[in-house]
Amino acid sequence: MASAEAVLAVIDAAGAHVPELMDRLEVRLAELATGHGETLGAHAGATIAAGGKRLRPLLVLLAAGPPPDEASAVRLLRAAAAVELVHSATLVHDDVLDAAPLRRGRPTVFAQAGRLMATATGDLLFAQAFAELARNGRPRDVQVLSDASSALAAGELLQRADAWDVGVPRERYLERCDLKTARLFQAAGQLGAIEAGGPVEILGAFGRRVGLAFQLLDDVLDVSGPAERTGKHRGTDLLDGTVTLPLIVARDRDPGLAALDLRAVRTPEQAEGVCDRIAATGALDEARAQALEMVAAAKDALPALPEGQRGALELVADGVVHRFA
Amino acid sequence: MASAEAVLAVIDAAGAHVPELMDRLEVRLAELATGHGETLGAHAGATIAAGGKRLRPLLVLLAAGPPPDEASAVRLLRAAAAVELVHSATLVHDDVLDAAPLRRGRPTVFAQAGRLMATATGDLLFAQAFAELARNGRPRDVQVLSDASSALAAGELLQRADAWDVGVPRERYLERCDLKTARLFQAAGQLGAIEAGGPVEILGAFGRRVGLAFQLLDDVLDVSGPAERTGKHRGTDLLDGTVTLPLIVARDRDPGLAALDLRAVRTPEQAEGVCDRIAATGALDEARAQALEMVAAAKDALPALPEGQRGALELVADGVVHRFA
Repeated sequence: MASAEAVLAVIDAAGAHVPELMDRLEVRLAELATGHGETLGAHAGATIAAGGKRLRPLLVLLAAGPPPDEASAVRLLRAAAAVELVHSATLVHDDVLDAAPLRRGRPTVFAQAGRLMATATGDLLFAQAFAELARNGRPRDVQVLSDASSALAAGELLQRADAWDVGVPRERYLERCDLKTARLFQAAGQLGAIEAGGPVEILGAFGRRVGLAFQLLDDVLDVSGPAERTGKHRGTDLLDGTVTLPLIVARDRDPGLAALDLRAVRTPEQAEGVCDRIAATGALDEARAQALEMVAAAKDALPALPEGQRGALELVADGVVHRFA
Repeated sequence: MASAEAVLAVIDAAGAHVPELMDRLEVRLAELATGHGETLGAHAGATIAAGGKRLRPLLVLLAAGPPPDEASAVRLLRAAAAVELVHSATLVHDDVLDAAPLRRGRPTVFAQAGRLMATATGDLLFAQAFAELARNGRPRDVQVLSDASSALAAGELLQRADAWDVGVPRERYLERCDLKTARLFQAAGQLGAIEAGGPVEILGAFGRRVGLAFQLLDDVLDVSGPAERTGKHRGTDLLDGTVTLPLIVARDRDPGLAALDLRAVRTPEQAEGVCDRIAATGALDEARAQALEMVAAAKDALPALPEGQRGALELVADGVVHRFA
């Protein structure tokens, strides 16, 4: 996620409508999460209330530009909320799978209420996303979001299928990042453009590239740390068996890493040792450079847009990079 | 689920179009489940291939009657497939939560591939349901299915919230059954009626009542057995902490059951002992009678429909009962 400051800069640049819409988004998200009553929605509500930078819904708003009227604003907010709900649903499910105690500094639904509540809470958020988006009365909206949601799940499956394989091809890694991260960013760009009658393919492609860069940089951060910034030990991906770009680059430079048995890496200390060895090859710089190229390509491919809108989209792209700088 | 024989009788009664559509449904379900390639879709495909009586999609087809043309048949099949995919997604997630080794006589996704793959496979089936339904180009379809999906998740949450509470109010139990089972049957009836331009509310209400009866009878079966029929020990709900109608009725007749500490019921043998004690109060007959009343009410409320269609819908309602007779 971009830093809070970078997001605020984007909101300033994009015009006065954005902070107002982002405020309304929070209200709507809370309503949707607790739509089945406070008891049932308690965990969904807490998940939403725990925050996050709302990068994906911000991208929906920016891809649209200022809505011409209230009806358009309402539709845009529905799309923004739906994208964030799908994202939140996957986070809740991921925390179940990882048995994660904390997210964003708060106990996860899994930690507070157990696996059953957390799985059902994720399902609820997911269903509410589609319920909200369907209110727009536009089948294309639903198609875009369901395609992205299928991709997300497929990305998770691919990650599991390739787990522990240090030799996983680079293309396969990029496909995984595309499925599990970039496609929802793409949907955000598409949904904003659909509402505004803008260039759907182009703004979708922008979102997709930014999303891919986001995932690459997140994977670098897991190796580089520092732990104080990420809130977790370096090398948690390694302990999960998840092979990412830094290791893929490093294994071609260090035969010892190419022969690594990931299942033998069992403690945070061992994982940090592998992280150090990856960093020593210079692989982190190469991975970072690849992400920066993607961001530059995303910005270059932006079409002619009103100045404020274009500037704000560029700031979002830069914000993704800045978090990791 | 209705017995295979009962389902075949329904298919015969409804006319020649139904077996053909049910065959096409299987083909389409398999395509959708494996839509992200054979590797990623392997578990989703196996889940679909494991079968089931397809009671919910059958209800979609019967609520519509014979489609007037191929375009209508295609839309109807999309709705039928979407409903079954949502149902399958919840089964896969339920098996994760219950750590269930077998379903329909085959190893579950959870047992074969673990919690991560099973959770992602459920998410994939869920997303594919909405992707398929959105192709109909009718926002109302998506609204109906997403409302039912939200209800399903809320029902799971309610079940967890009320777990281990022997004193749970009867109304609360019925609300849980409505959310976790009846609302998807309702959606099936609604979706069929929407396609045919039929009475959406009425056929939705029919589905909802049949679904509620289905859940009640399923809960009776968990207490009554026999185990050879259900493929699991009697009293598995008790071991889960799930309090159902038989115990709710029985606790008012047997003070010892009202004072039961469910957490102390830990072994299948203990659970079977509680089942015997519930059965001794006559509670199973009362619970069955309540379900049969619902089925009768569902049939009585059916509107004027072509004879074949009405007869087939009545047979579906009866089939739900027969499974449990």
